[in-house]
Amino acid sequence: MSTLREDPTTGEWVIVAPRRAARPHGSDQVERPSVPSFDPRCPFCPGNEDQTPPELARTEAGGGWDQRVFPNLFPALAVGASGEPLGQPPFRSRPGVGAHEVVAESPRHDERMDEMPPERIERVLRIWRERSVALKAIPEIEAVMVFKNFGDRAGTSLAHPHSQIMATPVVPPLVRRRLDVATRHHESTGRCVYEDLWEAEVREGSRLIAEGRSYVVVAPFASRSPFEAWILPKEHATSFEHAEEDSLPELAALLRGVLGALRLAAGDPDFNVILHSAPVHEEMKPSFHWHLEIAPRTTTAAGFELGSGTSINPVPPEDAAAALRSAMDSARR
Amino acid sequence: MSTLREDPTTGEWVIVAPRRAARPHGSDQVERPSVPSFDPRCPFCPGNEDQTPPELARTEAGGGWDQRVFPNLFPALAVGASGEPLGQPPFRSRPGVGAHEVVAESPRHDERMDEMPPERIERVLRIWRERSVALKAIPEIEAVMVFKNFGDRAGTSLAHPHSQIMATPVVPPLVRRRLDVATRHHESTGRCVYEDLWEAEVREGSRLIAEGRSYVVVAPFASRSPFEAWILPKEHATSFEHAEEDSLPELAALLRGVLGALRLAAGDPDFNVILHSAPVHEEMKPSFHWHLEIAPRTTTAAGFELGSGTSINPVPPEDAAAALRSAMDSARR
Repeated sequence: MSTLREDPTTGEWVIVAPRRAARPHGSDQVERPSVPSFDPRCPFCPGNEDQTPPELARTEAGGGWDQRVFPNLFPALAVGASGEPLGQPPFRSRPGVGAHEVVAESPRHDERMDEMPPERIERVLRIWRERSVALKAIPEIEAVMVFKNFGDRAGTSLAHPHSQIMATPVVPPLVRRRLDVATRHHESTGRCVYEDLWEAEVREGSRLIAEGRSYVVVAPFASRSPFEAWILPKEHATSFEHAEEDSLPELAALLRGVLGALRLAAGDPDFNVILHSAPVHEEMKPSFHWHLEIAPRTTTAAGFELGSGTSINPVPPEDAAAALRSAMDSARR
Repeated sequence: MSTLREDPTTGEWVIVAPRRAARPHGSDQVERPSVPSFDPRCPFCPGNEDQTPPELARTEAGGGWDQRVFPNLFPALAVGASGEPLGQPPFRSRPGVGAHEVVAESPRHDERMDEMPPERIERVLRIWRERSVALKAIPEIEAVMVFKNFGDRAGTSLAHPHSQIMATPVVPPLVRRRLDVATRHHESTGRCVYEDLWEAEVREGSRLIAEGRSYVVVAPFASRSPFEAWILPKEHATSFEHAEEDSLPELAALLRGVLGALRLAAGDPDFNVILHSAPVHEEMKPSFHWHLEIAPRTTTAAGFELGSGTSINPVPPEDAAAALRSAMDSARR
């Protein structure tokens, strides 16, 4: 029989239904196309810098740029004058003010994050931080979301390794919900729900994937998708910008390690990386706790998931954690 | 520039960003595989009735069954003893009690809903109603969700025309949110938010796809995906079981018509149909208003959508409505 599991950070239930993996046409993985190390038609490849909007930042390494940041050529939101909602209910709208930036993570067209030198990943993390700080300083901005899409099923439109940063003039609903749950938990217990969570996962052990000096990696108890993994900092900080500076090398190594383990243990799935960090006006509150979510995209949300907001996960997180743990261990040897 | 639009039924914002459709690898549609009218290996085809769990209901037409209802062979939830959550936070779970049923909608393996005789669709609607009534009578059940998945991107695992019914021991989060928004709207205005919505759409006109005696079909103002359509009953009823009996032929014809228009005007996308209906203990409240959602699956949720809960829609609903309206009109001629 399946079980319903409650996500303590959202209050929502996930259905963990192991037998459904046996369905016909379950979660087969498409063969990943081979990609050259340089693609002359790729706007993110070295030499094509004039094909992107003007650069916002870059880092240098080995005689050229190592990362570049520029506005998305097809932005979902763009800088401009904000303002209050226009129109009367039920038809209220507002200008799509905000920012939508791209971080080219490497000059190499074919370099997957699980193959990058950890120093490169660390530089990407620092860029995420710097751009978050810069965007949060814009008066119109309420929240910043950093994410990475890898593979078609994760919504990638370009193969070149990149991540994206979106700044929104409203606090998005899932961000608001996580904040509300964390605030209620803090009000009723005096504690941070994410700290309660990672400490309980370390004690329990069966969903622990890795533990470092400053971070723990877990397959969350109420994982919404197979092989979902969260990287949680041990030190409390509401937003990524306030993460401990000297912990970033460990974060880079763990992110690289868990993505490598995913490739090895889970059939190289498409995935998203999502940085959960407090919005602008919540940074000083004690309740939220930034973390990284790695969301493999092996299942397809169908009518039930769309209509109910409830996920069905065919792989128990304990099984996913065991597989990812042993893949990380064997990579370390 | 894009705009943010507020969905009055959830309070959430959607980003309508027309230019993004010009992106490389945007929303190309896979060629639909051709399907035989009878597949001897299909467990839902006539003659293979012994390959499904024991039948729960059937209708007869033309000398054989016309629809059959049976439990899903790989249920996400199954009948059993319920109970309170087990375990202590952050690790609370409960047995996956509920029901997961399949409605084979036609004996013909290749019959798409947009090609079915309207009487057949009407029989399917009546089955949705009867099974909802039966499942809501089970003490453990809190909510029932009826849905249909068409095509790989919509989560179908079998080509034979079918819909599904899931009964859950908890009210799912999106259902709860819609109820809360509708309740607040009713408390502050004395009116049903869905009635305000459809009346405003009829007055405004630009997103109206079709209007019948008992139903209106609209591309909602804050559509989350291209060519999203809602069929709303004019008569107030919180749940589908209380829909006017004599309105079902019109509903069947409109559902068939909008699915045909989607095929003609939107490149035959995969889609879900979702029946939004009040949960067990909310049926007598005045605030909710049942409706059908048709959700085409032409876009892929990426990291931003997953992390924020905010959709990015590259097709303005006014454009979608104009295309669907003219496709429905031309089919009628």
